[in-house]
Amino acid sequence: MKILQHLRQKRPLIHCITNYVTVNDVANALLSVGASPVMADDESEVGEITAISNALLINIGTLNSRTISSMIKSAKKANELKIPIVFDPVGVGASTLRNETAFRLLEQVNFTLIRANASEISFLTSKTGGARGVDASENELGKDILEHINAAKILAKKYNCVVAVSGKTDIIVDEKQTKLCNNGSPMMANITGSGCMLGAVMAAFLGASDDKFEAALKAVCTFGISGEMAAEKTIANNAANATFRTNFIDALSFVDDDILNKRAKILSH
Amino acid sequence: MKILQHLRQKRPLIHCITNYVTVNDVANALLSVGASPVMADDESEVGEITAISNALLINIGTLNSRTISSMIKSAKKANELKIPIVFDPVGVGASTLRNETAFRLLEQVNFTLIRANASEISFLTSKTGGARGVDASENELGKDILEHINAAKILAKKYNCVVAVSGKTDIIVDEKQTKLCNNGSPMMANITGSGCMLGAVMAAFLGASDDKFEAALKAVCTFGISGEMAAEKTIANNAANATFRTNFIDALSFVDDDILNKRAKILSH
Amino acid sequence: MKILQHLRQKRPLIHCITNYVTVNDVANALLSVGASPVMADDESEVGEITAISNALLINIGTLNSRTISSMIKSAKKANELKIPIVFDPVGVGASTLRNETAFRLLEQVNFTLIRANASEISFLTSKTGGARGVDASENELGKDILEHINAAKILAKKYNCVVAVSGKTDIIVDEKQTKLCNNGSPMMANITGSGCMLGAVMAAFLGASDDKFEAALKAVCTFGISGEMAAEKTIANNAANATFRTNFIDALSFVDDDILNKRAKILSH
Repeated sequence: MKILQHLRQKRPLIHCITNYVTVNDVANALLSVGASPVMADDESEVGEITAISNALLINIGTLNSRTISSMIKSAKKANELKIPIVFDPVGVGASTLRNETAFRLLEQVNFTLIRANASEISFLTSKTGGARGVDASENELGKDILEHINAAKILAKKYNCVVAVSGKTDIIVDEKQTKLCNNGSPMMANITGSGCMLGAVMAAFLGASDDKFEAALKAVCTFGISGEMAAEKTIANNAANATFRTNFIDALSFVDDDILNKRAKILSH
Repeated sequence: MKILQHLRQKRPLIHCITNYVTVNDVANALLSVGASPVMADDESEVGEITAISNALLINIGTLNSRTISSMIKSAKKANELKIPIVFDPVGVGASTLRNETAFRLLEQVNFTLIRANASEISFLTSKTGGARGVDASENELGKDILEHINAAKILAKKYNCVVAVSGKTDIIVDEKQTKLCNNGSPMMANITGSGCMLGAVMAAFLGASDDKFEAALKAVCTFGISGEMAAEKTIANNAANATFRTNFIDALSFVDDDILNKRAKILSH
Repeated sequence: MKILQHLRQKRPLIHCITNYVTVNDVANALLSVGASPVMADDESEVGEITAISNALLINIGTLNSRTISSMIKSAKKANELKIPIVFDPVGVGASTLRNETAFRLLEQVNFTLIRANASEISFLTSKTGGARGVDASENELGKDILEHINAAKILAKKYNCVVAVSGKTDIIVDEKQTKLCNNGSPMMANITGSGCMLGAVMAAFLGASDDKFEAALKAVCTFGISGEMAAEKTIANNAANATFRTNFIDALSFVDDDILNKRAKILSH
């Protein structure tokens, strides 16, 4: 299956209700991977925008009362039209507003995929623990990986969706399957927006594929491989974070199915 | 006439009410071309900010009820003070809110210039057809160019303004004149914000010139030439979208009147 | 004292309520210097987010009624918990809303540091004069430096805080001390966000240090040295503004205590 070729032929339109910190990176990441972004968050238009899209991304990074209503409305429309939805519960655990919004969304909406870092997944599973900031620690998936797989499995069963846990090793689970992906670079944690862009890229893959688990897995690998390619180029040029960001968005357009198949480091669990 | 030299001497202040996706690119594009950006969108201050500016940009890319009121107020102040206004009806055709807002603005405000892609211009002219996403297709101005010129002419007459249609060939019309510009690069469609930056750069030229048609035409050429220069550098370095974005904003500061006069590919129609 | 090493070990969490134009640069600048950003501006969560942070940044670049309430609430929480606050009164002097908001904040909140350009400081001191745009003119601190020191001193005494005036020569004062820093590059005025990033980097230093004046001074030097390093690299590559921006954020991660001590150009006054 040539998943990237198909994505680029279909050029899915991805409706993003996302935070204003990384929204430009999200749009450019979508364009680079071969999708088309549309950002709209006013309650009076989100239903129409979702209706013409191939997937919806909901990211609560800078949520507020105005956009929360839009998220709910948009997600219900997506459910009605069977449009896949990615939920990125950025910073859940850090405030009551984030916690209440995340659970309100999870109760009222059927998400296709939840993407988060380990502390966010852990919070959603346990309702305890607190996220510190919104950037993933490079090591948070090291020794505790079994615990994180378990937490992801609980969420996947409870909400009947795919769950992706981002970290040094990425975890992708649904009710039946567990896969690990070992692609990626520590440099991805040095820029803002890595997680947000991944959520968007996963929405692009979901918007172009019928097999949701396979789409999620290949999206994570594509993203990690792009990180590796960008890190190689950045290090070779003695550059750092901002250069890596540029190289990373470039790399998302360089990865094709051949590179994906050759470089993907997927483990079954 | 040394239009770029004059712009850089005058350093016009451009008040932008624009979307949060590409606002940073818009600000940096204005600085690179030689203007000064100011972003303000609260209804209680936009009148004052417009009043000290040399031009106003209204871009509805991520409009909401709060900012729509600000757009109206700001534009009326600009009309009162005879400050030129660029209108960028991003995504018009895609939702009722965008359509109603665009026509409300067109009825209540005298715009100096409308800048849009072909599907948006077509929608404004016909009130039919639907924009798909907000990024211009590279080919949308190929064979249908006569139709697009016609649509732009209708708008230009109806609203007594300059109309610029962006695409592979750019079209600039007013009631009396039609010019085509063949500068640019397909890479401009690979990043978000090309259209938004062009709207802002056109506002900068309008804010520094008395001849509105000439300003619009030279802004489009300057922008397209910058795209060509950036594409050459990007391809020479085997890089892609994000590198192109960086090279493009750099190039806006490299284009001077000599380069503009040498490289501009203008056709009269 | 190894101030940068200590900052990077502590990795302070910086809560930013800032404008949507440069928020991405602010986040990436914080990550590059070694801090962790968190952006949140909804009134119902800002108290909780401030409470888990090591410093708070309030930047009024694109203020609106919703975020002004959040700024007040957040700042009062920071005062209550003795968390340092940086105030960046972007564009004060340009509108009644900005003026009223700035003075309302100054009256209700104890800021640790005010960072601004000379025209903004001048306005705050005199309540006269008008900011033109929000980007610092390269020369505004040339011959008038004594006047700017005096204005900063008045503010520092009145509000019992450190005051930093950005320009060709940076001024850092409190009630007792005056230091000048001559690091930096004219290229910093060619991009949007230089001032905003500096405010954030100062918050990072304050969040990791007990000596507030020393933290402010070293933050300004670190920032200026990064500008010099980035300018050298940009010029060597015949590049311009956008490349400088990338090189600048890279450079923030390259500066260490050795480089800081060697390159800092500090003058006592």
